[in-house]
Amino acid sequence: MDATKILLDESEIPTHWYNVVADMPNPPAPPLGPDGKPVGPEALTPIFPMALIEQEVSGERWIQIPERVREALRLWRPTPLYRAHNLERALGTPAKIFYKYEGVSPAGSHKPNTAVTQAYYNSEAGIKRLATETGAGQWGSALALAGQMFGLDVHVYMVRVSFEQKPYRRAMMETWGAEVFASPTDRTEAGRKVLGENPDTTGSLGIAISEAVEVAASNADTNYSLGSVLNHVLLHQTVIGQEAKKQLDKIGEYPDMVFAPCGGGSNFAGLAFPFFADKAAGKEVRLVAVEPTSCPTLTRGVYTYDYGDTVGLTPLMKMHTLGHDFVPPGIHAGGLRYHGDSPLVCQLYEEGLVEAIATPQLATFEAGVTFGRTEGIIPAPEANHAVRAVIDEALRCKESGESKTLLFNMCGHGHFDMSAYEKYFAGELVDYEYPEEAVKEALKRIPKLDAA
Amino acid sequence: MDATKILLDESEIPTHWYNVVADMPNPPAPPLGPDGKPVGPEALTPIFPMALIEQEVSGERWIQIPERVREALRLWRPTPLYRAHNLERALGTPAKIFYKYEGVSPAGSHKPNTAVTQAYYNSEAGIKRLATETGAGQWGSALALAGQMFGLDVHVYMVRVSFEQKPYRRAMMETWGAEVFASPTDRTEAGRKVLGENPDTTGSLGIAISEAVEVAASNADTNYSLGSVLNHVLLHQTVIGQEAKKQLDKIGEYPDMVFAPCGGGSNFAGLAFPFFADKAAGKEVRLVAVEPTSCPTLTRGVYTYDYGDTVGLTPLMKMHTLGHDFVPPGIHAGGLRYHGDSPLVCQLYEEGLVEAIATPQLATFEAGVTFGRTEGIIPAPEANHAVRAVIDEALRCKESGESKTLLFNMCGHGHFDMSAYEKYFAGELVDYEYPEEAVKEALKRIPKLDAA
Repeated sequence: MDATKILLDESEIPTHWYNVVADMPNPPAPPLGPDGKPVGPEALTPIFPMALIEQEVSGERWIQIPERVREALRLWRPTPLYRAHNLERALGTPAKIFYKYEGVSPAGSHKPNTAVTQAYYNSEAGIKRLATETGAGQWGSALALAGQMFGLDVHVYMVRVSFEQKPYRRAMMETWGAEVFASPTDRTEAGRKVLGENPDTTGSLGIAISEAVEVAASNADTNYSLGSVLNHVLLHQTVIGQEAKKQLDKIGEYPDMVFAPCGGGSNFAGLAFPFFADKAAGKEVRLVAVEPTSCPTLTRGVYTYDYGDTVGLTPLMKMHTLGHDFVPPGIHAGGLRYHGDSPLVCQLYEEGLVEAIATPQLATFEAGVTFGRTEGIIPAPEANHAVRAVIDEALRCKESGESKTLLFNMCGHGHFDMSAYEKYFAGELVDYEYPEEAVKEALKRIPKLDAA
Repeated sequence: MDATKILLDESEIPTHWYNVVADMPNPPAPPLGPDGKPVGPEALTPIFPMALIEQEVSGERWIQIPERVREALRLWRPTPLYRAHNLERALGTPAKIFYKYEGVSPAGSHKPNTAVTQAYYNSEAGIKRLATETGAGQWGSALALAGQMFGLDVHVYMVRVSFEQKPYRRAMMETWGAEVFASPTDRTEAGRKVLGENPDTTGSLGIAISEAVEVAASNADTNYSLGSVLNHVLLHQTVIGQEAKKQLDKIGEYPDMVFAPCGGGSNFAGLAFPFFADKAAGKEVRLVAVEPTSCPTLTRGVYTYDYGDTVGLTPLMKMHTLGHDFVPPGIHAGGLRYHGDSPLVCQLYEEGLVEAIATPQLATFEAGVTFGRTEGIIPAPEANHAVRAVIDEALRCKESGESKTLLFNMCGHGHFDMSAYEKYFAGELVDYEYPEEAVKEALKRIPKLDAA
């Protein structure tokens, strides 16, 4: 029988990150200020260390991974690549299905790849504390772990409703020594303002971002840390795709199609961008981002300049957006509830170099249960989006008799999302209509820029 | 820098289980009936398949692992062996600390090693359904996964209080297709009897065992499955220690001391017995079982014949016992709350060939947090017992300047136990006194056997 897992040695952890900018047909659209003028790197120095800002604007194809970051990554990397034999058999498909399993990281997802990197550069820059926001808690726990590894305090502003509903993610962050605050707090001006207007607010990711950014901008020893969207975050995740290529290569395979969930974009970019390098060099490979139908940024958003956060503190970024104050329906894939998307992913999508599809919540859970029952691993709700897309493609292969090689990112396990599965089994999960009216309204509030 | 993880290839999954009986200085004390006469294997046929009964009484040193079991194990095995560099540095110890990480299995613990094996043999024997009990849910989820892999229905009788308090473990079992019942149920005579006497009972492991055994004994297509204590269960876990030996051998190491948590004994036996083989051949190695001070079976129990379950359905087994109806205090290491212990482990302990120590709850959580903050992995409460013992030994090495090599079983992650960590941080966890009076009373109810 063919191998179930393809493993790599620690020495095979990539030595460089792959920067997709070097292979893009056009330079990335620059971030703009509210005045419509490009924002220089210096605008970011109050909240990011220079090394990360340099990565944010770099055009170099390969950027070396510091040895101490590789050492930190060795705690869980290289991650295994699996052949989904049991799933293939259950579907009766001639397709070969492979998945890269990022759930083996201590925080249970791909997020620590960039968290340890950001913690390292901040610690090198003499920063003492990182502030960040978290919704469901995936990113907050990754940064808590990373802060612990590099001796940084971590303050997590956790959306109040999640703070109350997800005590276990919070306990995980606290086990790793982070302080977790229910946002909005009275620790920041932004928080006090919101509480003044609405003391009973459940909070939102937008408010939590504002709090974390405010704390970072107003304290010299504190920086801000973001878990997706930005170029340097996507860069750090490319260890995933590089390892997957090497693993497939060991068994003489190359994917026809690569799938990954897409919220802010780093999950998708992490797996897909290293394959984009081959595509740019002429190789045939399809790269498919999978998003929720209730927050279909790439497939239904407008490609324009918009804020990265809800309240408009960030520079304007060119991306597919549903409007910066659009609040997506409450699907359980919290990591995919983002109004915008990575500018790099959006530009490649706009240029027809990557694809996107959207899938409804119930279909993703149905796929996740099929995966759990065949492959044993219970996926995170975000990961279920990729599982759904892969199963659908594998079933098409069954129809057509094609033996395609499919690869997807099993970006995390669902151990902290079992309440969502519980609701699914109880028939309490629903599909949400695409909120057309809400998006239309939110799109009206996108800032109008004079043609530059 | 030395390696952090030592990995093995799938081809290095052991081909045989190691049966410690072959190396014991004395034959195992036989199980007895209530009449004090040895019970033959045929007494077990209503609830176990013949292949497992044969393993239960086998004296062969090596028993071949069927290819389909090895295939099932490949989903997560070989498991990694880690060098705990960060923990060593934090303790400032000259000791080398290694841990075998069993939390990479889909169910998150070592339990699936025997669950898939038992499911395989039952499926080969034409059995359609397995019935079992579960407390906190570790064993129930392992068997749910295994049943799914071998096409068996799994019925889990889950102690009512856990059924209500641990909906996520339950959702995990349901995701893998198992049916989970809050025990006591009205599905069995045993359950109806208890409910008749006390409709508001929270249930107990003893009652749940009675229900599962009753269902298995009274349905020809249903067998019973147990997650520890019995010889064949310990046998299946020896893949852990065999892999660990091979991994240490690859880097030229051999442990001075081997530690594992000890409840029913399969966790300890799984790691330690393959090293016992060397010890029996003259090698110096100390094997240390770590139990809770609130349920100190080996260190304070009486070595005598007692029932394996609370209500007295099983044969009498010679073991260290606190009395079969002793109810241990409600520590969070649910897997260690057992009144007795594996007869094989007990006999070796009685003969001075393995050691045991007991440790209080708060000290184990303190150790677990130290481990989580240094090594990233948040351990299950059961695993924290071994962590505590290893940290204490490493600190003794610091005092003495000895550079011992220590190995322990990181038997599972704590993702489903974060509420216990939450309580620990909130100062709500307590240490329990050794319940001396309750044990004294329970010991009086051990059946008196005529000297055989």
